Amino acid sequence: MAIFRVARIDLSTEKVTEEVYKDDVLKKFLGGRGLGSYLALKEIPRGIDPFSPSNRLYIFAGPLSAMANLSTSRVTVVTKSPLTGSLTHANAGGNFAYWLRKSGYDGLIIEGSSEEPVYVVVKDGDVAIKPARHLWGRWTGAAVKAILRENGFPEEEKAAGVAVIGPAGENLSRIAGIRMSDYERFAGRGGVGAVMGSKKLKGILVWGTRDLLKDVKDRAKFIAESTKLAQRLMSGPTAKALHIYGTNLLTAVINSIGAYPTRNFETAYAEEADKLTGEYIKKNYVVETHACMMCPIGCTQHVMVKGGPFKFIGKAKYEYENTWSLGANIGLFDPEADLRLQKLANELGFDTISLGNTLAAALELAKMGKLPVNIDWGDAGALVDLVIRMANRSDIGDDLAEGDYRLALKYGEPRVFRGSRGQGLPAYDPRSLKGFALSYFTANRGGDHLEAYSPTWEVLGVPEKVDPLCETPECIEKQARIVIYAQHLMALTDSVTYCKFATLDREGIFEKDLAYLFNLAYDWDVTPEDMLTIGERIFNVERLFHVKEGKWVKDELNPHFRNPIPTGPAKGHTAAKMFDEGIKIYYKLRGWVDGKPTYDTLKRLGLEEFQYLL
Amino acid sequence: MAIFRVARIDLSTEKVTEEVYKDDVLKKFLGGRGLGSYLALKEIPRGIDPFSPSNRLYIFAGPLSAMANLSTSRVTVVTKSPLTGSLTHANAGGNFAYWLRKSGYDGLIIEGSSEEPVYVVVKDGDVAIKPARHLWGRWTGAAVKAILRENGFPEEEKAAGVAVIGPAGENLSRIAGIRMSDYERFAGRGGVGAVMGSKKLKGILVWGTRDLLKDVKDRAKFIAESTKLAQRLMSGPTAKALHIYGTNLLTAVINSIGAYPTRNFETAYAEEADKLTGEYIKKNYVVETHACMMCPIGCTQHVMVKGGPFKFIGKAKYEYENTWSLGANIGLFDPEADLRLQKLANELGFDTISLGNTLAAALELAKMGKLPVNIDWGDAGALVDLVIRMANRSDIGDDLAEGDYRLALKYGEPRVFRGSRGQGLPAYDPRSLKGFALSYFTANRGGDHLEAYSPTWEVLGVPEKVDPLCETPECIEKQARIVIYAQHLMALTDSVTYCKFATLDREGIFEKDLAYLFNLAYDWDVTPEDMLTIGERIFNVERLFHVKEGKWVKDELNPHFRNPIPTGPAKGHTAAKMFDEGIKIYYKLRGWVDGKPTYDTLKRLGLEEFQYLL
Repeated sequence: MAIFRVARIDLSTEKVTEEVYKDDVLKKFLGGRGLGSYLALKEIPRGIDPFSPSNRLYIFAGPLSAMANLSTSRVTVVTKSPLTGSLTHANAGGNFAYWLRKSGYDGLIIEGSSEEPVYVVVKDGDVAIKPARHLWGRWTGAAVKAILRENGFPEEEKAAGVAVIGPAGENLSRIAGIRMSDYERFAGRGGVGAVMGSKKLKGILVWGTRDLLKDVKDRAKFIAESTKLAQRLMSGPTAKALHIYGTNLLTAVINSIGAYPTRNFETAYAEEADKLTGEYIKKNYVVETHACMMCPIGCTQHVMVKGGPFKFIGKAKYEYENTWSLGANIGLFDPEADLRLQKLANELGFDTISLGNTLAAALELAKMGKLPVNIDWGDAGALVDLVIRMANRSDIGDDLAEGDYRLALKYGEPRVFRGSRGQGLPAYDPRSLKGFALSYFTANRGGDHLEAYSPTWEVLGVPEKVDPLCETPECIEKQARIVIYAQHLMALTDSVTYCKFATLDREGIFEKDLAYLFNLAYDWDVTPEDMLTIGERIFNVERLFHVKEGKWVKDELNPHFRNPIPTGPAKGHTAAKMFDEGIKIYYKLRGWVDGKPTYDTLKRLGLEEFQYLL
Repeated sequence: MAIFRVARIDLSTEKVTEEVYKDDVLKKFLGGRGLGSYLALKEIPRGIDPFSPSNRLYIFAGPLSAMANLSTSRVTVVTKSPLTGSLTHANAGGNFAYWLRKSGYDGLIIEGSSEEPVYVVVKDGDVAIKPARHLWGRWTGAAVKAILRENGFPEEEKAAGVAVIGPAGENLSRIAGIRMSDYERFAGRGGVGAVMGSKKLKGILVWGTRDLLKDVKDRAKFIAESTKLAQRLMSGPTAKALHIYGTNLLTAVINSIGAYPTRNFETAYAEEADKLTGEYIKKNYVVETHACMMCPIGCTQHVMVKGGPFKFIGKAKYEYENTWSLGANIGLFDPEADLRLQKLANELGFDTISLGNTLAAALELAKMGKLPVNIDWGDAGALVDLVIRMANRSDIGDDLAEGDYRLALKYGEPRVFRGSRGQGLPAYDPRSLKGFALSYFTANRGGDHLEAYSPTWEVLGVPEKVDPLCETPECIEKQARIVIYAQHLMALTDSVTYCKFATLDREGIFEKDLAYLFNLAYDWDVTPEDMLTIGERIFNVERLFHVKEGKWVKDELNPHFRNPIPTGPAKGHTAAKMFDEGIKIYYKLRGWVDGKPTYDTLKRLGLEEFQYLL
């Protein structure tokens, strides 16, 4: 039997209550994103302002988190997003999930809001709320260190789990994330950092000594079997490449197939991207690599810029998405300026993808003469200036802090927003990857690459190669089926919790392995099909949140992607056909009508309790 | 008869009381720095923490402020300094003094402290305290605009007087200043911005319609006579040059005589200073000039950096001191990086001189291997990074925010601090200007170039040329007399209030003109000698503050300046002789013993009420 123990912390009353979820719920939703979304759908009142005390943060590990060396130290944050006004989930690696579970809890629910800045300390089951006025305004790295120090830990990010927000979250930037130790890992998207800011919650420290394998019947077998899986995982080529280059091995690959968005998705190929590649940055700027707790892959790359106008103090964690969003997508191809912006984003506490989206929209508005700022693509100095202003909501930075969607609306040019459901898109042009197009447009949290990572098929050919540009009826149906499968698998990864990078090789961890591990750990008797049904259930619960809010229910194609790509290997392609034809097939396969689950679908998934929403 | 009306605003109780000072007090202390220092000496309890609610901010215009086109729109802030732990006074131009007097008050005393961030609005005699939580964290420029907008004014810095602090002041950086509208003028030194921050006071708006010449008997004559003086003032060469180049005309001049401190005063000559000169910057970066309210000189230079890695949004005000402190003194000779740092300093709300002093000390510590940061002289990118960290007190920025003096002590190398009384020195090497050396070391607020601007004699030759390097007994005595005279004259300028730039030409405004104007305006019958005695009285009152605190009473020579200058036109010179011999003469001429006024001196100046301090 599995047990999922939650501390519900009300910052308005400073009351802490404990809740326990058992097999009846866990077998339907697991933990992480699944359980978080389920509770959010039940608990968050319809129509509230995401910044109101009635909003909640579900900061959940999963029932297998930190129990095996399988990249399982991930944590998901679910909340009503101030960016999209609907449900979001943001996921981070590092060691927070590990220390959260060690603390005695598997999840924290933060509700209410404090009058004064506070931080929360959870140590071996004890929850304390401490004043944080002295930490308000601090950069994320400094805040992590201060919280560790004040609680008797060494200033070493592995010593305990610490989640913090930076000035961006404090100042309610709708594109603020939560830094989740260790180093600069983030629960990035959807403005989760601003929700934390609205609750005047600067940080959370978790630590403890709980034995996570205590309730596993055959402890030795669980360890042996999960170790075997880890070894299999590491035999795959992508896992190995990730260890060497980190996520940014993708720049060269994605650009080479003409799917690399450039200058706010003006085109999908950057001729100037050579110095943004993983290979170039590895050679010139990476100073060390690092692994999340209990992860055999170890993809983290730490960089330094040791001189010049963009030199910064200390090291930064850098990623493919960040390199793109603060590089090619804002027309910037100087790797040092790019890394500087990444460091700033991490320290100020921004969602780096949305930060880049917003800067890109601002640049396009400025070029149109709509935004009263003299900036141009790749204008590194001005962009550094803008980012700092955004964190402090100063001058034009105040408008940018609202994010790309609202910025575009405010300045009368909604078409410069390139995303879905109010959230900007990540580093893949949907016109060049038709499967990913469908994945983007149907993603529940909007503008998303992590609800169904179809490049696994389209680019890596795992488990089989699918032509990313094919638009025959057969291809479209195949892509729709892949996206649906991937959506369920990703809902699983975020709820188990484990890392999506374990699903990029044939040798990776999939539903069969998960069923095996759950049965082993908790005496369950679930099948791989049951696991995928859990994924489907979670995905439908998230969609029901949109239905409840009456917002973003129907999937839409951002009109920009009806324009053909003007240059590069995928020149001439659009996302129109995949949307116009694919979405119908997708809905049919899902048992949905107009983006909405039917009663039959809910019934099949055991979600009848939500039929009142239909 | 003159009247000086003060609003005393207690932020703890939100009580506002009105006080009126009349001829009996004003004829002894005038307003501004004089009246502020007198009240501070009487009211600020001995030994308090400058950040305690018992500290006070005296924000005072003077009895002639904004009454004539004589550069009289200046305001002085007096408080117990968190940098020096003793009295400081910081003076700013712009339009604050103008609108303060128009509001019906000539001065504001801020005491107590608020729990929550607030700002104060004074309109035509009404004082309101408004919430400012939404402005906390904002850059100075954005905060000024927001306060104007929220109070019904256009977002134009001339529309009302606004004083604000930036993140530096909010976060109690001991080197934070107060931005005094309009544009980026600052009451800079001594950490006055941090005192405002400790009171949770983000800003002050002043505005009104009072007729400032109402009580002048012969209004037409006063206007005619003051206009004549303004015309005479503007006939001088320095006033004209200031209008064209601003204060930075000094870079070339001061460097050419080998008095330009370079790399934390390592030497006093910078071979690489060409691109930091007023001429070069005027040609390449100045986009407009500007004048403080009612000032015929108009020395303000606004610059833009329109491209490259140091481009910033909008315009910046730049000055000689800032260009030096954030340039040559930190080994930085790229004008664009320098201007970027100036803009950042102004927006974040730092005292630019102390900011540069602190960076210089940090660089020297880093070069010695004492500070755990990999930075080098002129390391522009890293310096930009450091300055932002300082404002947010993040990482090593937390130590730097304490200022040069404390930084040097903390890292065990007090000798990297280059200043006096805990405050770093400005842009003149005391070894190359012997008069200024004496002026520096005796300045009451420490590390100061504005308590006696002896370069008027030593460099400009006004009213007569004095050899800055001469150390004969005759020269030393002459310099001591000049410094004493200048200290009295400068105490006058800060208390009248008018601008020191009106004292740089033979055609300028001196004690004779002041006596004439006071007699005209208020039916007084004071002589030029009386005016200078007022200056002397003020200077002694300030010294008594040190006596009361038991701190910084005795003048000291910073040991670094016993080392000869290693390069440049003044190579080989030290400040040792001027200190060792000059200080004795200076004390004798003042009627002081060991830096302390005697009873006879107090009696002569009508300061017997403070004899208990001796």
